[in-house]
Amino acid sequence: MLKNDLLLRAARGENVERAPVWLMRQAGRVLPEYKATRARAKNFVEFVKNPELACEVSIQPVDILGVDAAIIFSDILVIPEAMGLPYQMIEAKGPWFEKTIKNLADVEQLKIAQADDLDYVMKALQLTKKELNGRVPLIGFAGAPWTLFAYMIEGSGSKTFSKAKQFLYAQPQVAHALLEKITQSTINYLKGQVNSGADLLQIFDSWAGVLSEPMYYEFSLHYISKICDALSPLVPVTVFAKDAHFAIQKISETNCSAIGLDWTLDPLKSRGQAGNKTLQGNADPCLLYADEKKIISDTQHMLRAFGKQRYICNLGHGLYPDLDKEKVKLFVNVVKEYKWE
Amino acid sequence: MLKNDLLLRAARGENVERAPVWLMRQAGRVLPEYKATRARAKNFVEFVKNPELACEVSIQPVDILGVDAAIIFSDILVIPEAMGLPYQMIEAKGPWFEKTIKNLADVEQLKIAQADDLDYVMKALQLTKKELNGRVPLIGFAGAPWTLFAYMIEGSGSKTFSKAKQFLYAQPQVAHALLEKITQSTINYLKGQVNSGADLLQIFDSWAGVLSEPMYYEFSLHYISKICDALSPLVPVTVFAKDAHFAIQKISETNCSAIGLDWTLDPLKSRGQAGNKTLQGNADPCLLYADEKKIISDTQHMLRAFGKQRYICNLGHGLYPDLDKEKVKLFVNVVKEYKWE
Repeated sequence: MLKNDLLLRAARGENVERAPVWLMRQAGRVLPEYKATRARAKNFVEFVKNPELACEVSIQPVDILGVDAAIIFSDILVIPEAMGLPYQMIEAKGPWFEKTIKNLADVEQLKIAQADDLDYVMKALQLTKKELNGRVPLIGFAGAPWTLFAYMIEGSGSKTFSKAKQFLYAQPQVAHALLEKITQSTINYLKGQVNSGADLLQIFDSWAGVLSEPMYYEFSLHYISKICDALSPLVPVTVFAKDAHFAIQKISETNCSAIGLDWTLDPLKSRGQAGNKTLQGNADPCLLYADEKKIISDTQHMLRAFGKQRYICNLGHGLYPDLDKEKVKLFVNVVKEYKWE
Repeated sequence: MLKNDLLLRAARGENVERAPVWLMRQAGRVLPEYKATRARAKNFVEFVKNPELACEVSIQPVDILGVDAAIIFSDILVIPEAMGLPYQMIEAKGPWFEKTIKNLADVEQLKIAQADDLDYVMKALQLTKKELNGRVPLIGFAGAPWTLFAYMIEGSGSKTFSKAKQFLYAQPQVAHALLEKITQSTINYLKGQVNSGADLLQIFDSWAGVLSEPMYYEFSLHYISKICDALSPLVPVTVFAKDAHFAIQKISETNCSAIGLDWTLDPLKSRGQAGNKTLQGNADPCLLYADEKKIISDTQHMLRAFGKQRYICNLGHGLYPDLDKEKVKLFVNVVKEYKWE
C-alpha cells in the first residue's frame, strides 16, 4: 500500500488534498548525487543497463527533493536497441545510431521487442519499487512511436527531423509498418513495466512538434492511442506530446488519464480543450533561474490557474542540468505548502 | 512601376486575381546557381557583405523558380555585428559569436546601428532593385529583437536557448535595455532598406517558440510592435513568429499588414484569430519530398483553405538545402496555375 498516492488519485481524477508534484529529469544531472552515481558507470548506455545504479538515482529525488513520485531512470532509446538498433550517447551531442532504417527490408529485419529483452529495466523497476517501500508511486515510461521512429531514421537528434519527415512523405506505407512494430514493442515493454511495479506510465512524444496537425494524427497519435488502449486498463497513462499545441483535444479523446503540457500552453485554454482529463505541467524550466520571489509568485500563479483537482504539478519540460538544486527544492516546496482555499 | 504587384496588393488586403507565391530561403542552397555564386566568396560573412553577389542570388529565384517576389539575400545577424558583436558562420554548425552579452556594462558598450553602418545591404538592395527592373517587388527583412537578443546572449544556436531565457528571468531590466537598443538599430536599418528600394519588410522571429506566452509579449512582441509602428506608414510589414502558436491574435493587434504562419497552424483557425490581416504560409517544407501527386493535392488543399484574398502563399519555414529544385518549381507552378472559382 502506498503512503502517498496523491499522484495516482490526481491522475484518476479523484479528490486530493493538494496537487502532487514531480519533475521531468528529476533523476538527473541537477543533483550532484546523480553525478556521483553516474561516475561509477563506464558510459551512459552501461549506466542505463545497471539496475542497481538506475535504482539509486531513481530514489535520490524522493529523498533529496521531496517529490511525490519516483520515475524510473532509463532512456527512451532502449526500445530501438531491443528491436535491433543499438545506440551510443555521445557527450554534449546526444544519441547516435550506427545503423538506421532506410527501407522496408530494414524494417523487416527488426524484431518486435518483448519485456524479457529489457530485463535490466524490469529489474531496475523491481529494485526501486522495493526500495521505495510504498513511500510514493513509481512512474514507468516509454518514448512515443513517432519519436522513436524519428531517431531510428535520422540516427541522431536533429533541429528539423527532416530526414524522418521525408520518410513519412516519401514512403508512408513503410513508415506505418515501422510505427506498428515500434508500437507492439512498446506495448510489450510497458506491460512488463506494470508487472515489475510501475504505478503509472508516461509516453514522451518529444518530437511531436515537428509534424503538421494531419501528419501528427496519422503518424503519431494513432499509435499513442493504441498504447493507451492496451495499458489504461492496468494503470493510468499520461501522454506528453511536446509542442503539439494543436493536439490537446484529440489527445483527450484517447484512453489516457492525464495530458502533459509544455510551457507554451495556457492552463485555462488547455482545460477547455482537455475535457475531464487530468493536466500535468507546465512551468518553464528557466523560471528556476529567477530569484526566489519570482519563483514563488509564478508557481503560485500557475497553481491557481490549474486548480487543485485533476492536476499534477510539474515543469513543461525536463530540468536543465545547470539549475540550482536549492531552487528546484523551493519549487517543490511552494507546491507542497500552497494553501488551497 | 511594378509589372507584378500581387504581393503588395495581397499584403495590403486589396483584391488579387490569384494568390502570390514566394519561398523563404528561395535565395539559397536549393538552387545549384546559388552554390556557384556562393563559391566565389571566401566565406559566408564575406558573401553577405558583397552587394554584387547578394544581388545575383536574390534575382536567381525570380528567373529560375518564377516566384512573385525577390527577397534580398542577407543575414539577420548583420545587426548584432553593426552594434559591435561580430560573428562567423561555421559550416554545418551555424553562427558563432566570440563576444557575448553578459551584463549592463556589455549592453552599454554596444552602439545603436545606423543604416549607414549597413551600407553593403543598402547597396545590395539598390542593385537588386535596379536589376529587377520592376518585374516583381523586393522584400527586405530583419530578425526580431528577441531572436537577435537570443544569439547575442547565447553566442550560437541552441536547442533550448536556456542561457538567453535565463537572462530574461534573472536580469529583466538589462534585457529590456538590450532589446530597446536592438529595436532602435532595427528601425534605423529597415528605414534604410525602404529608402534603398524594399517594397515590403518581413520580421523573422525564429526563436519565438521557446518563450512562454506572457514572456513572449513582454520580451518579444512589444518590440516587434514598435518596429511595425515605425515602418508600417512606409511599406507593408509581415511578422513571422515561428512556433508562437499562441500569439496570432496579439500579432494581429500590431500595425503589421501580414502574419507568417508555420506549418503547425491551421489555416481556418488562424483566419479566426488574425482579424483582417493577410496570412502567409504555411506548407511543411518536407511536403516537397513527396511525390508530385501529393505535392499537387496538398498544395491545392492549402490554397482552398486560405482562400484567394488576403493570402500570400509560402512554406511554413525556409526551403531545406537538399530539396529537389524541380519539386520546388512544381509547388510554385501549382499556386500560379490554380483555377480560383
